[in-house]
Amino acid sequence: MESITKARKICHLLLRFLAFGATLSAVIVMATSHEKASVLVFQFEAKYTNTPAFKYFVIGNSLVTVYGFLVLFLPPESFLWRLAVATDLVFTMLLVSSISAALAIAQVGKKGNSHAAWLPICNSVPKFCNQVTGALVAGAIAVIIYMILLLNSIHRVLDPLILRKC
Amino acid sequence: MESITKARKICHLLLRFLAFGATLSAVIVMATSHEKASVLVFQFEAKYTNTPAFKYFVIGNSLVTVYGFLVLFLPPESFLWRLAVATDLVFTMLLVSSISAALAIAQVGKKGNSHAAWLPICNSVPKFCNQVTGALVAGAIAVIIYMILLLNSIHRVLDPLILRKC
Repeated sequence: MESITKARKICHLLLRFLAFGATLSAVIVMATSHEKASVLVFQFEAKYTNTPAFKYFVIGNSLVTVYGFLVLFLPPESFLWRLAVATDLVFTMLLVSSISAALAIAQVGKKGNSHAAWLPICNSVPKFCNQVTGALVAGAIAVIIYMILLLNSIHRVLDPLILRKC
Repeated sequence: MESITKARKICHLLLRFLAFGATLSAVIVMATSHEKASVLVFQFEAKYTNTPAFKYFVIGNSLVTVYGFLVLFLPPESFLWRLAVATDLVFTMLLVSSISAALAIAQVGKKGNSHAAWLPICNSVPKFCNQVTGALVAGAIAVIIYMILLLNSIHRVLDPLILRKC
């Protein structure tokens, strides 16, 4: 029984470490994305700071990275673990929100929107687009891991209650 | 003691009813938003189906509306309430995600993005923009209510555990 608990704890810590790595990668890949391009005589540089949604993505993911890093060093017997469900919830919401916003803009960047006369830009700056895609994939992995952690916490807390009294 | 529990239950049901009303309004306001405009000789119609992010907003909010409606009729003693934390979590994520995506596009519609040569469209279709803003506000209210419900559920479930054993 004790070995199962230990395996569970290691698995839990591993998931948290992976989530930390995923958000950190998302921040680094998004923040380093920039590409110079010239269309006719017009020169421009694509970078994440040009788009509010991408800035929000970097800020949101940075906050979750710091949180994920701090949680890794929380001692297993700490009382604060009881509050981790609520903080996990808030930071997962932040992550979901920032990725959705960045994804919506990335979709316009890739496909454009003919109704609003917004042209796609990925043909001019393919390297930039690939880096943004990479950052979004890393962010999506982090969301999936945090969702697993959250649903697991809720299940673990609720399970004895369900069994005890329906 | 019993009257406190009763007041709490009424408050809980009221919040759920408000959340249902908010998502329903968001769907109706967004789905009925359309405006015809002409720029020079070029005629166009702005509607939510032209933008994938707005379609996602309508679909996401519709799903949450149906869920919110069904939950209203769940008997108070039902065993399914125990699972409501997990389903609330998933549907709140859906709501947050759809609003963030729609907000990111609405921001481009309002301010444009000079770096990508995407021009703002709100000057041509102000009525459409106002309706989208209204839908986003209704959606944001729904998110806030679901967050309160979620944090309250987590607090209620965790509280006895925290008191019993730290």
